[in-house]
Amino acid sequence: MEDIHVFCPATIANISCGFDVLGLALASVGDEMVVRKISKKGIFISKIEGQNLPKETHLNVAGIAGQAFMKKSTYQGGFEIEIYKQIKPGSGIGSSAASSAAVVVAMNKLLGEPFSPLQLVEFAMEGECSVSGIPHADNVSAAIFGGITLVRSYDPLDIISLNIPKEIYVTVIHPQIEIKTSDSRKVLSSNISLKNGIKQWGNLGGFIAGLYTENYELIGHSLKDYIVEPLRSKLIPFFHQIKLGSMEAGALGCGISGSGPSIYALSKGCNKAEKVASAMHHIYDKTGIDYDIHVSEINIEGIKVL
Amino acid sequence: MEDIHVFCPATIANISCGFDVLGLALASVGDEMVVRKISKKGIFISKIEGQNLPKETHLNVAGIAGQAFMKKSTYQGGFEIEIYKQIKPGSGIGSSAASSAAVVVAMNKLLGEPFSPLQLVEFAMEGECSVSGIPHADNVSAAIFGGITLVRSYDPLDIISLNIPKEIYVTVIHPQIEIKTSDSRKVLSSNISLKNGIKQWGNLGGFIAGLYTENYELIGHSLKDYIVEPLRSKLIPFFHQIKLGSMEAGALGCGISGSGPSIYALSKGCNKAEKVASAMHHIYDKTGIDYDIHVSEINIEGIKVL
Repeated sequence: MEDIHVFCPATIANISCGFDVLGLALASVGDEMVVRKISKKGIFISKIEGQNLPKETHLNVAGIAGQAFMKKSTYQGGFEIEIYKQIKPGSGIGSSAASSAAVVVAMNKLLGEPFSPLQLVEFAMEGECSVSGIPHADNVSAAIFGGITLVRSYDPLDIISLNIPKEIYVTVIHPQIEIKTSDSRKVLSSNISLKNGIKQWGNLGGFIAGLYTENYELIGHSLKDYIVEPLRSKLIPFFHQIKLGSMEAGALGCGISGSGPSIYALSKGCNKAEKVASAMHHIYDKTGIDYDIHVSEINIEGIKVL
Repeated sequence: MEDIHVFCPATIANISCGFDVLGLALASVGDEMVVRKISKKGIFISKIEGQNLPKETHLNVAGIAGQAFMKKSTYQGGFEIEIYKQIKPGSGIGSSAASSAAVVVAMNKLLGEPFSPLQLVEFAMEGECSVSGIPHADNVSAAIFGGITLVRSYDPLDIISLNIPKEIYVTVIHPQIEIKTSDSRKVLSSNISLKNGIKQWGNLGGFIAGLYTENYELIGHSLKDYIVEPLRSKLIPFFHQIKLGSMEAGALGCGISGSGPSIYALSKGCNKAEKVASAMHHIYDKTGIDYDIHVSEINIEGIKVL
């Protein structure tokens, strides 16, 4: 195989109760990428469509993740990359993660899969680090493994694929304002109260128990965030209205997607997720802010070959 | 039914990664209690064997929990209580929880179960509060529901019974020094770093995923405590030697039981749990400190009628 065309899902990190540890991949929102083996050593980005992003390898997250891969690889040739970007940078649904993850998964497939998925996550984390300054694994894990993932530990890196209840649907609204991951990190405090920590890990536990027992009510009750949402929601216009509207429309839970500004809601069944989308439209139409809304199933396979 | 004789399990709270939210009931360690309906209104403790504890209703946790029950009950009579105490107060394996939980479960059975298990937890929490100053639910939930429980939320109270892998065995050593729950709370800080919080909820998530998938390796990796163990382990003589010895003997994980001084280890299979017990004996025999060691399966039924 000399070239490969892949789809890389958008991802929702944190999922309210799992800051920096939970991620979820979307089935119908994502980027595409073509990666081609070439004889010249190195990573070369030949085309980027859809977004205005740098083609210089060391300035592009896909290039940086690809270089991390190359450092550990014995391959003597190079790769040419075409990026077809659908996910807007700074949207909070894993734009940099999609590029970082897609390139290393594609390169790995072209070379006969010398690296494990966990190693690919580590390479992709270098791409993530170049954007946010922190090598977080929550988005790239979900993109690479698919489904709903838990980063149990960063040192050593340990990723758990969690059970996915069949009827979970996701609605995401992306208000077209940019919040950089690095900026949204700045509003966080380096300390939290033990009291809020207890609430947070109680809910994370409930969420995971709910996933395994397919108990939608428990999943909904657990989608709470005492740590990050109170601080970051201030950066997102009409966050509380969207949350209230989504819950009134029947969502199980609603919160900030990653570092925002996107807001996600989980629902039981596609109809409910569509109703939540209508409620979001209704609220945002009045604001004068451009926005996108997506309704999606959960992607269960991760990055897929097209 | 005019009287009832119940067994109430000892319990391990926190289980390293779930401070204030996780609890586990032991099958073969616990108290017994006889509760008898009487015509005279009120709660009367007529006998306590095994430990030197107050018989005055308002000074005894069983009496206090019983009074919380009576406040919500329409029953016009009273109860006489005999307590056969096996669990030593201040041991860290739920002595007060056993008394608080047993009395309300027994009274509920005698009256035809007017209250739900969740309501019984709330009554028993008043007994707990009288000892530690904090109405914690982790021990009493495990005692009443049995198995391994998660207190997802305190407000509203929500208790989740988690899946129990068949081969989990528990070894517990109780060094016979007393640490009061209120004292062991004092060493805790009211704030934690976000970084340690993330590690803690990552591990709690891993532990719960491990319980549902019966992945013993994952359970073991997740039994880590970045919040409480570093502070409380200093109060427990030879804690680190016991932990090291238990892990070398093949335990999945080892940590402080509740507020200590008891130390628990989880193992896969009874043989491993017995080996861990031998290692603990070997270490503590040299210390000159009196101790008990128990090896137990997990109690799956909670408080049971004898």
